Amino acid sequence: MLLTLSTWPEVEAYLERSTGIIMPIGSTEQHGPNGLMGTDAICPETIARGVADKIQVMVGPTINIGMAQHHLAFPGTIALRPSTLLAVTKDVVLSLARHGFTHVYFLNGHGGNTNTVEAAFSEVYAETGLGPAPRPAPIRCRIRNWWMFSGVLRLSRKLFADAEGAHATPSEVSLSFYAHPDAVKSATLSPPVAPRGGFYDAADFRRRFPDGRIGSDPSLASVEAGERLYHAAVDEVCRDYQSFVEE
Amino acid sequence: MLLTLSTWPEVEAYLERSTGIIMPIGSTEQHGPNGLMGTDAICPETIARGVADKIQVMVGPTINIGMAQHHLAFPGTIALRPSTLLAVTKDVVLSLARHGFTHVYFLNGHGGNTNTVEAAFSEVYAETGLGPAPRPAPIRCRIRNWWMFSGVLRLSRKLFADAEGAHATPSEVSLSFYAHPDAVKSATLSPPVAPRGGFYDAADFRRRFPDGRIGSDPSLASVEAGERLYHAAVDEVCRDYQSFVEE
Amino acid sequence: MLLTLSTWPEVEAYLERSTGIIMPIGSTEQHGPNGLMGTDAICPETIARGVADKIQVMVGPTINIGMAQHHLAFPGTIALRPSTLLAVTKDVVLSLARHGFTHVYFLNGHGGNTNTVEAAFSEVYAETGLGPAPRPAPIRCRIRNWWMFSGVLRLSRKLFADAEGAHATPSEVSLSFYAHPDAVKSATLSPPVAPRGGFYDAADFRRRFPDGRIGSDPSLASVEAGERLYHAAVDEVCRDYQSFVEE
Amino acid sequence: MLLTLSTWPEVEAYLERSTGIIMPIGSTEQHGPNGLMGTDAICPETIARGVADKIQVMVGPTINIGMAQHHLAFPGTIALRPSTLLAVTKDVVLSLARHGFTHVYFLNGHGGNTNTVEAAFSEVYAETGLGPAPRPAPIRCRIRNWWMFSGVLRLSRKLFADAEGAHATPSEVSLSFYAHPDAVKSATLSPPVAPRGGFYDAADFRRRFPDGRIGSDPSLASVEAGERLYHAAVDEVCRDYQSFVEE
Amino acid sequence: MLLTLSTWPEVEAYLERSTGIIMPIGSTEQHGPNGLMGTDAICPETIARGVADKIQVMVGPTINIGMAQHHLAFPGTIALRPSTLLAVTKDVVLSLARHGFTHVYFLNGHGGNTNTVEAAFSEVYAETGLGPAPRPAPIRCRIRNWWMFSGVLRLSRKLFADAEGAHATPSEVSLSFYAHPDAVKSATLSPPVAPRGGFYDAADFRRRFPDGRIGSDPSLASVEAGERLYHAAVDEVCRDYQSFVEE
Amino acid sequence: MLLTLSTWPEVEAYLERSTGIIMPIGSTEQHGPNGLMGTDAICPETIARGVADKIQVMVGPTINIGMAQHHLAFPGTIALRPSTLLAVTKDVVLSLARHGFTHVYFLNGHGGNTNTVEAAFSEVYAETGLGPAPRPAPIRCRIRNWWMFSGVLRLSRKLFADAEGAHATPSEVSLSFYAHPDAVKSATLSPPVAPRGGFYDAADFRRRFPDGRIGSDPSLASVEAGERLYHAAVDEVCRDYQSFVEE
Repeated sequence: MLLTLSTWPEVEAYLERSTGIIMPIGSTEQHGPNGLMGTDAICPETIARGVADKIQVMVGPTINIGMAQHHLAFPGTIALRPSTLLAVTKDVVLSLARHGFTHVYFLNGHGGNTNTVEAAFSEVYAETGLGPAPRPAPIRCRIRNWWMFSGVLRLSRKLFADAEGAHATPSEVSLSFYAHPDAVKSATLSPPVAPRGGFYDAADFRRRFPDGRIGSDPSLASVEAGERLYHAAVDEVCRDYQSFVEE
Repeated sequence: MLLTLSTWPEVEAYLERSTGIIMPIGSTEQHGPNGLMGTDAICPETIARGVADKIQVMVGPTINIGMAQHHLAFPGTIALRPSTLLAVTKDVVLSLARHGFTHVYFLNGHGGNTNTVEAAFSEVYAETGLGPAPRPAPIRCRIRNWWMFSGVLRLSRKLFADAEGAHATPSEVSLSFYAHPDAVKSATLSPPVAPRGGFYDAADFRRRFPDGRIGSDPSLASVEAGERLYHAAVDEVCRDYQSFVEE
Repeated sequence: MLLTLSTWPEVEAYLERSTGIIMPIGSTEQHGPNGLMGTDAICPETIARGVADKIQVMVGPTINIGMAQHHLAFPGTIALRPSTLLAVTKDVVLSLARHGFTHVYFLNGHGGNTNTVEAAFSEVYAETGLGPAPRPAPIRCRIRNWWMFSGVLRLSRKLFADAEGAHATPSEVSLSFYAHPDAVKSATLSPPVAPRGGFYDAADFRRRFPDGRIGSDPSLASVEAGERLYHAAVDEVCRDYQSFVEE
Repeated sequence: MLLTLSTWPEVEAYLERSTGIIMPIGSTEQHGPNGLMGTDAICPETIARGVADKIQVMVGPTINIGMAQHHLAFPGTIALRPSTLLAVTKDVVLSLARHGFTHVYFLNGHGGNTNTVEAAFSEVYAETGLGPAPRPAPIRCRIRNWWMFSGVLRLSRKLFADAEGAHATPSEVSLSFYAHPDAVKSATLSPPVAPRGGFYDAADFRRRFPDGRIGSDPSLASVEAGERLYHAAVDEVCRDYQSFVEE
Repeated sequence: MLLTLSTWPEVEAYLERSTGIIMPIGSTEQHGPNGLMGTDAICPETIARGVADKIQVMVGPTINIGMAQHHLAFPGTIALRPSTLLAVTKDVVLSLARHGFTHVYFLNGHGGNTNTVEAAFSEVYAETGLGPAPRPAPIRCRIRNWWMFSGVLRLSRKLFADAEGAHATPSEVSLSFYAHPDAVKSATLSPPVAPRGGFYDAADFRRRFPDGRIGSDPSLASVEAGERLYHAAVDEVCRDYQSFVEE
Repeated sequence: MLLTLSTWPEVEAYLERSTGIIMPIGSTEQHGPNGLMGTDAICPETIARGVADKIQVMVGPTINIGMAQHHLAFPGTIALRPSTLLAVTKDVVLSLARHGFTHVYFLNGHGGNTNTVEAAFSEVYAETGLGPAPRPAPIRCRIRNWWMFSGVLRLSRKLFADAEGAHATPSEVSLSFYAHPDAVKSATLSPPVAPRGGFYDAADFRRRFPDGRIGSDPSLASVEAGERLYHAAVDEVCRDYQSFVEE
């Protein structure tokens, strides 16, 4: 079930049988010469819809913009400050808590969101935990990166081995191409596999990774690989989400 | 051009010929017994894509969640506090300013966003205007409600007359049905045309408008009407956007 | 009754018979070559006092500084950021709520305040609406621009026709002169009627409207016109305020 | 010169000869059984106008609402949170800095404002002092309590001796009566001199000081005493302000 | 008892017999040519430990960084903005309130903290005082500067007379040397007694007080003097703290 | 070199030869029946001092209070909200940037701090990266957990194998006992090895881990083990810090 395509009486009926929800969260940021700016939102949204079909969980609207300051030296990147994303996450969780949702599962497409979203969970919990009248938090939150499940990691390694890398990976580019086959792009990459390493701010990122890729060769991406990754990820998220809501 | 389906070199190339962008902004909130929770995001997103096709303007990712506190008494509504939406808008504008965008046009699907987004524009301008070293703001912002253009208003009136109302209108429901014909819902509405009037907080809203509609009969909504409204809105936004960027 | 000239036992007695209050809110900003910087605070304060005399409503202290960033290119303008004015409005409303006030009516003298003050109302309502234990907001808020009531608009049009304009209008200047006849100023205006149009930030405002006026000829202002506008506005506010508190 | 009764060209002319300004800042809070809620705004506003007459300094609009949380248990008190007043003060100072003002002198009527306003000055200075490109702050700020000048203290002591106390003092009530002789109130006070001491929050304040006074007998207040205090305070502020702007 | 060297069951046991705590708060900032950067944290920490030994009060962790923006022109100074320190203080107090602490006594080593910490107390109190359901604050807070107790002032005057000054005083330097005899530093000071006076921002501070001292001759500092000041301060704080918790 | 025991001229001299600094950051929170509340601050502070001795790096004051909301159900825990810790970290980094420090290395004793401190780094970088005039961030930041270096992990495993666990570990308790041998505590633990697992808010944490330990048997802690861990950690941090500043 997609929240955005449901009516409120349908949501009310859903809450009778389940109080869990999946919130896809991504980013709008550069993904190298042939990756889409929307990759990090497209991937979790696509997977979440697969999960919704399979286990009838409600999927909320995708948060399309995340914490992407380190990509700001590439045109088109849109970044929320950490403090802004923290506020967004908190308001989303508190809105859902009002309706009786008890488990909010953020399916994440962008590693740069994790710290801030986790901090936001603590900010929500702190609201009920600080002060003279503490009470249990009414809602439990989890964030999971779709590409970090063991089954997905195994498949990525099998498909792309050392060319997977850490940003603008062939796996995420494949999945976004699977979701948007009309938007498949190609580019000549030089070097074929990008350099690896850490980085600091946006200027430093671009200096180290001039075309935006980290350690990856996304020219290997394909719709077919994307389809396989999609199914692997849907399976993993179904399993993980169910263990979450049963807790 | 959709930013989310572009690569960063494509954005870079776009910026060579234009420094304007359209940002669809909506809300996830109840829209009465047969309206979709995502109506307010779906409508501007759909129109913006039509505009992009017609005049080759860049369209950014849709901001799916807005200032909807007054709808919180209906399950599924997700609301950002005004102060949160203000921060989101500001960060989006400043991200785009970094890349050299000079004109940001928010195409809005939810009246409740307007005050806060306008306040955010002033917050951006205040950053360059307060203090001892004022300088011209590097970017100009506009927000427009798609249903408020005269051509759209005329068509709505012609199609639905007094049953148009003010929330969960047959016009917006029609447009969302046009965008998502598989998600067309029907409901028996009682009374056929909902009561009208103002409201204060969420509890007050629900007391006055028990099924969520204000002054409307969205059972009149249809895919066909949506298509006509879509074309009317695309025309109006093309015209208005072009006058904006030429300023 | 003026809150500032009352003792707390007098306020306590007032609350026995009424829980409504009028808060004048203005701005300190340029009003063209012959308009006073304080025009936007003086006008609602003056009208509110007239209302207080007529229907024995409590009038709070005037908020003298508002959201005036777009006037900052003219010396003397003082502007709160939208986020600051939002916090001010929220604290004022929550202070009044503590004492049992249930209806707060902001009588506004500056159009630039409206978005932010409306956003602040939603921020107050969101506090009681977000989270797992929603409850009705304890207080209802309204903001009204004194010059937008139909009776006042009619009179302005009759007095000044097309020379009324949109900023530094002969109507507001007249009303401020009526309130402060010793401060009547005159200036030679060129052109007699200022240009019209929209604007973005403070630098843009001054570029378009070099002497600060928008579409107006405030050299037509007079104490006599101010007196007539005063009586028209007092009548309208009395009526509107009473319908508000009876809701 | 009163900023609110000046035009912007008059402010521009003033800035040619002086870049200092006095900002009266007060509070709207209980002042015991016969003191006015507006006492703390009325007093500095009245004195500042006397100073303006005497030494042709510009006086800005009065900030009528301050940090008065400890008085909230008495009806009518309106309080800004410290964080809100901090933001207000900062925006006021940065607005004035934009126009070239270099010295902002807050003439204060409420002791409860001092900590927060001083913190705000540091917040302004921190903006230019933190980070890799520090620079001298463009503006200097001072806050002074009108009743703390030695000449005023001497007169208060002479007039009221031990009945002066610390809140709702006969001195401040006298000065407000001098400014508003039509609003003189009387009340039977029991005990004649209120208890003294410290306090914590609003509930604690009311428990210790049931009628709102601290250590004072404001039944001794008179218009005549107010006039004498007024002249003493005007003299002191003139002197102190001039030494400030010459620094 | 030192909280940092206690286990939680020990804290639980302490709360059975007392609900008061001392929180040392300092700063990391320049203290002239021979004073330690940590002087303002070392002094209250040292005194608080003496108090803990003498009257078995719980002493919390030292807040080592404070509001020191005016010292930022000297290398090594670390400053929190007032708004940051306000948030820190508020969270500390609300954490302690959760556990049932009712009296939090901040023993302060840096005058620059006072305004902000006092403002933070009001912010805590405002949380329970604003809005429609006020209730007594669950916790009472006090801040005291260790060098301002009459017994300490007398001793400082006796030891150092006019060379005590206002910043980098021989008293505070002595106390820090007593706490860290291995870190005793010496420096040739010129002039022996530093200039006196006020200051604005960090650049202004350094211009007026080129080596960081205000009105003091810290070359007079000694471990022996520090020991005497330590005992005087411990006595005073014991007395003052006990009167606080008994209130 | 300890910043707190240095004078400002000593810091100035240090900056001539190095622009890196280590900031120990910890927490004040329960560490099970025999662990100290201050464990997480004591450990990085102790290690950092060892590093300072060995490679003459400057060590700043310890941030003693961190993001510990999940431990708030145990008496004595003090927690900053994530948004507060974010502000603290940002102000510390910007203070150091002012003096010319270019590399700030946070040596962390509490896993719960990581998300928020990393978010703060991005907030700092965003300040220079958002908006129309981006520039390279003036400072680079890193956070490292002392117990996560491979050499330390190996030793912990060798010493305590499966009894190491995840909170109130014998390793951290040993290190704190090594630093404070007078504060060694013992407790009978039941079960000897605590349960493992994740958790949500503070109430949930205490329900799952009734005595505060996660998966650990800290009764195995000893001063001797602490000494070995200390040396292992000092070696690792020296190596890692040097690679950081050379970058």
